[in-house]
Amino acid sequence: MGQWQDRRITDLFGIELPIVQAPMAGATTSEMVIATCEAGGLGSLPGALLSIEQMRAALDQIRAATRKPVNCNFFVHVEAGPEPQRHQAWQSALAPYYTELGLDPSAPVPSSARAPFDDAYCRIVEEYRPEVVSFHFGLPRAELLVRVKATGAKVIASATTVAEARWLDERGVDAVIAMGFEAGGHRGSFLTQDMASQVGTFALVPQVVDAVKVPVIAAGGVADRRGVRAAFALGASAVQVGTAYLLTPEAKVAAFHREALKNARDDGSALTNVFTGRPARSLYNRLMREQGPLSTLAPSFPTAGGALLPLRGVTEKQGLADFSSLWSGQSAALVRNEMSSAELTRYLGEAD
Amino acid sequence: MGQWQDRRITDLFGIELPIVQAPMAGATTSEMVIATCEAGGLGSLPGALLSIEQMRAALDQIRAATRKPVNCNFFVHVEAGPEPQRHQAWQSALAPYYTELGLDPSAPVPSSARAPFDDAYCRIVEEYRPEVVSFHFGLPRAELLVRVKATGAKVIASATTVAEARWLDERGVDAVIAMGFEAGGHRGSFLTQDMASQVGTFALVPQVVDAVKVPVIAAGGVADRRGVRAAFALGASAVQVGTAYLLTPEAKVAAFHREALKNARDDGSALTNVFTGRPARSLYNRLMREQGPLSTLAPSFPTAGGALLPLRGVTEKQGLADFSSLWSGQSAALVRNEMSSAELTRYLGEAD
Repeated sequence: MGQWQDRRITDLFGIELPIVQAPMAGATTSEMVIATCEAGGLGSLPGALLSIEQMRAALDQIRAATRKPVNCNFFVHVEAGPEPQRHQAWQSALAPYYTELGLDPSAPVPSSARAPFDDAYCRIVEEYRPEVVSFHFGLPRAELLVRVKATGAKVIASATTVAEARWLDERGVDAVIAMGFEAGGHRGSFLTQDMASQVGTFALVPQVVDAVKVPVIAAGGVADRRGVRAAFALGASAVQVGTAYLLTPEAKVAAFHREALKNARDDGSALTNVFTGRPARSLYNRLMREQGPLSTLAPSFPTAGGALLPLRGVTEKQGLADFSSLWSGQSAALVRNEMSSAELTRYLGEAD
Repeated sequence: MGQWQDRRITDLFGIELPIVQAPMAGATTSEMVIATCEAGGLGSLPGALLSIEQMRAALDQIRAATRKPVNCNFFVHVEAGPEPQRHQAWQSALAPYYTELGLDPSAPVPSSARAPFDDAYCRIVEEYRPEVVSFHFGLPRAELLVRVKATGAKVIASATTVAEARWLDERGVDAVIAMGFEAGGHRGSFLTQDMASQVGTFALVPQVVDAVKVPVIAAGGVADRRGVRAAFALGASAVQVGTAYLLTPEAKVAAFHREALKNARDDGSALTNVFTGRPARSLYNRLMREQGPLSTLAPSFPTAGGALLPLRGVTEKQGLADFSSLWSGQSAALVRNEMSSAELTRYLGEAD
């Protein structure tokens, strides 16, 4: 097996293969992280849906199982204030589904949360000292960022435009994740809200490479070895891969979601805000078709998802994905052979 | 100078370099075509805005100047019937601009035409026998396609999804142009109208390669040598390049358009239907921001452009692009050194 000529990211993180397993809140398990790390890639534990205790338990498990470098990922969104009018409009739009499913549209709406990075999470970073910390939706406030850096962690973050990449570079990140339009899940966007001008991976990566001092990790559409080679040709020093890991046995993915991924077409997904209030790439389902994919009614991230919980409670039991997010990038169809997370990491990371 | 290992397209067309200059109606000149062909690439003459006489004159000029293979490109859209109500709604939306510019909103609207491929154009193909004929928006009806093939021309066409690529492959094209989301100008889409599910080049190319028997030409975001190498890594056998040729001295581009291209950002464009009625990638201008980028009011292709002509007549004289299309792909910012069409072709086509 050869070596990749560009070792800027592998040297920076102290890993063998230029493969970052994308942190996928809800779907990434400790087993996935451990297998990826042990195979020579960078496993990434997503914090957004984990309580402090859950994160601690996961890191205990991971640190006990591997001595390889690990990445902890956090969302750094600013939580919106109360939006009673928007929630009312959103509930009105969803009321017919409640009625259809025999639910009471006037019942209190459960809350849907994603925890932003804060002092408590920062203390976990200080205690467990992950070798890499990645942020989504920008960077935490300066005081927290200083504390993270003081642990010795390499700090990386997502950019969906050159402007965002420059912003991150100026604030001292160690590497930029150039997240193209093709990527599944939440866009990392934080300086723009214009989804019509989002940039494809093929165009974004070389422009980010030209714009920043630090090495670049390409994300969005990388699902097989051709994608890794192409990303390097565009100037990236590593890739971040999500959807292909969603199809490994280590992923915690509902059966209807796994089935949708297996049948995914190149043009079967869109950027949608109907699940959380923030644009994210999901395979089309009923809610996206009827209310989106981009809705002006969805309340701010992450609260839009609350009113969906009762609907999901009924439909998911029937195996239906009508109201459930089906996060996926545009290259799900490239994932044909189901591999374990370890096999996938080694396959993707093999040099010429 | 080395050779590209994959010679499926260069051998198919009888050219030296795997570089196709994109046919850009209005901007491509005979000089651009000639220079590209002589440099070893495939020059492409767009027919959509040329009358039969103009096309004949251009081909006379091209055939006199080069013996290399040439491509003639045609639109194959079906012209919409009269849409008086849609035109009225569109004119109402534009009326404030007319008033602002001192124009009469109730004056008869000029017509805006793009000629679809028909018997007259087919006779030109039969007479001049271009080595390659490319189609946009699908394929012509079977009887015309048979006539084109009978001339010996290699037939290629654009696909924006795997389904479109398969459709073309089944109908006997010699190669498919996989046109990613990043590409400038009109989307080649013909089986889908859902612009929210359009596919980025990075995801599209390998999925099309896997889906069709014929070789694939990658288009969308290819503007420098990194892009050519990446396209080959994804499985393409050639690339089609538009925006970079728009910045050559051979391109016929208004000064305000050239200036906008020179200052283009990665996230400065969007798919819009406000200029012609059909989605196309343009740099943002006033009309796109205020009425689009995708408008439900714009009449069918190509008639939406008619009502803009009086507005453009006033503003373009002032050097303003407020109502004028600024076709561009997402990689315009990669084009930093202005080269001639010949230099660009040789630069892009240089193998490792």
